[in-house]
Amino acid sequence: MGIITVVGSGMMGSAIVIPAFLNGHEIRLVGTHLDRDIIDGLRRDNRHITMKRTLPDGFKYYQIEELESALEGADLLVSGVSSFGVDWFLENILKRIHEDLPVLSVTKGMIIGEEGKLITYPEYYKRNLKGKDIKLMAVGGPCTSYELADRDDTYVCFCGDDMELLRKTKAMFEAPFYHISLSTDVTGVECAVAMKNTYALAVTLAVGLAERREGIGAIHYNSQAALFSQSVREMRRLLRLTGGRDDNIVYGAGDLYVTIFGGRTRLIGTLLGRGMPFEKAMEELKGVTLESVVIAKRTGKAVRTLIDRGEADAADFPLLLHVDDIITGGAEVDIPWTAFETETLV
Amino acid sequence: MGIITVVGSGMMGSAIVIPAFLNGHEIRLVGTHLDRDIIDGLRRDNRHITMKRTLPDGFKYYQIEELESALEGADLLVSGVSSFGVDWFLENILKRIHEDLPVLSVTKGMIIGEEGKLITYPEYYKRNLKGKDIKLMAVGGPCTSYELADRDDTYVCFCGDDMELLRKTKAMFEAPFYHISLSTDVTGVECAVAMKNTYALAVTLAVGLAERREGIGAIHYNSQAALFSQSVREMRRLLRLTGGRDDNIVYGAGDLYVTIFGGRTRLIGTLLGRGMPFEKAMEELKGVTLESVVIAKRTGKAVRTLIDRGEADAADFPLLLHVDDIITGGAEVDIPWTAFETETLV
Repeated sequence: MGIITVVGSGMMGSAIVIPAFLNGHEIRLVGTHLDRDIIDGLRRDNRHITMKRTLPDGFKYYQIEELESALEGADLLVSGVSSFGVDWFLENILKRIHEDLPVLSVTKGMIIGEEGKLITYPEYYKRNLKGKDIKLMAVGGPCTSYELADRDDTYVCFCGDDMELLRKTKAMFEAPFYHISLSTDVTGVECAVAMKNTYALAVTLAVGLAERREGIGAIHYNSQAALFSQSVREMRRLLRLTGGRDDNIVYGAGDLYVTIFGGRTRLIGTLLGRGMPFEKAMEELKGVTLESVVIAKRTGKAVRTLIDRGEADAADFPLLLHVDDIITGGAEVDIPWTAFETETLV
Repeated sequence: MGIITVVGSGMMGSAIVIPAFLNGHEIRLVGTHLDRDIIDGLRRDNRHITMKRTLPDGFKYYQIEELESALEGADLLVSGVSSFGVDWFLENILKRIHEDLPVLSVTKGMIIGEEGKLITYPEYYKRNLKGKDIKLMAVGGPCTSYELADRDDTYVCFCGDDMELLRKTKAMFEAPFYHISLSTDVTGVECAVAMKNTYALAVTLAVGLAERREGIGAIHYNSQAALFSQSVREMRRLLRLTGGRDDNIVYGAGDLYVTIFGGRTRLIGTLLGRGMPFEKAMEELKGVTLESVVIAKRTGKAVRTLIDRGEADAADFPLLLHVDDIITGGAEVDIPWTAFETETLV
């Protein structure tokens, strides 16, 4: 059996190793400087204070100062940091570890590379490691951490350059409730799931719009489904734009679904749909949806950059640009329905 | 302004003409022999007894015996029959009307043609009209009738062979809450939305499975999203198989979404997921989900025919075949998770 060290003991980093633990692997969960209280709590009674779940008895817990002993003899390093922790992880972890320790990252999202294009975190890490050859893998697909902790059936995709290593890693994690596909199309998988924050926010605008029209609690699905359709259309275009394979829409659509219902992005979409200005909604939800909004802003900025350069067409992304107008420019919600209409001649 | 005659005053036939009525067109709603009580009710107070909505004052109502006067001077005929009424509509309406009256059909689903392949209803009609050249169009995309009647924003696709006619028809129906794309890829649009019954049943198995594990009312989305992902994957394969364009997954995914949440198929998927045998679930829901189950059975049968002939690969449709085993063969729910896993090498 192997040793898996997780750095970043947030919800996803802590949940993803549960199936591996049940497979008999040793789990060492290391909190960053931001996770101090989480580790303290876990040491007390295995209770994860932000995920509000009890982790299996047998997990080993470490504060960041104990990193070195947590890494000793490890077979796999899991990055559990959020998209805000990417540079910290690069400087403090990736630049220090041995090249033969493979890394599996749960961080979702993409980042704008120097050339203005959206690149994946594995690609970002690789560029900044300047020749240090760490085997980087990432996890995509629909998964909320607490439901994985509850052992609800979950289907994800591990991606990376090395299929042999992916298979080995899958063997450590696969469990009766955790199902894993593999892909070497890192850009495709990561792009498909990075878009979900923007589009989950977009779809849930309809939740708030129905309430604005008919009162809190009113529910309609035609308008949500309409925005879901348009989201799938634009996500497929974004996949093409980044060079990812079209098949990955499978993960994109699933991740959009789970984010609309299981995620926190829904809260802000609903408030905006009801007519609350963005700044006020952000105040109301202080902290809760920060990461998803930042990812959405990044995506909007990157697509606008491509449009400015003539590498993308604004007409292809009316919903994404509208969401960006709302969260960046303070625009009022006014779904550009007509812009979604197409004529297809075969 | 034009005259639109609807034959089949069920929920969708009655709802789809609301936007056209608001655009100033004359609406003549004709009940079939099965709709007698609906028409009686509407004549009394514009209340639609099965949709449980009041239709706009100004609709004209007809019993089937008054068909001739309802058709007099009509510019467009809407077929509002369910998939059970297709042959009745063919024999009693299509074979009798004038060739220059275009037809828009709201009937969803596909049918097994003589050669064992899935064909669209417009194609089925065309074959059986033996040279009579009626301009047939159909509606696809996510739309529940009562939400359209409530004027929730709805986004659909009108498809047919003649783009000019599609544009003209769109102009009659397009409204601030009814948004329409157009396509001449009839097979693609119809195939994408025909699959939704099978896959909505599949996704909602997870609703019941979570309840079986944790008690009624327990809700998880990872497993629903996992099945949603796999559904999108198999729907794309079915599109390829029938020769429809891949873009239509946009409508398929949206229609799946609205059927999971706004439709009646959810009831049966949930009961089956909880562990209730199919026959018992059907008894419990007597009548309610009949059409969706019949469509699912048809789809299963057609795909099995293609597999038997070597034109499709069973390994490509594990979820569809499992649903078919449940509803046709009485199999127990046991999601074939491992069969969903793929390896993608780029």
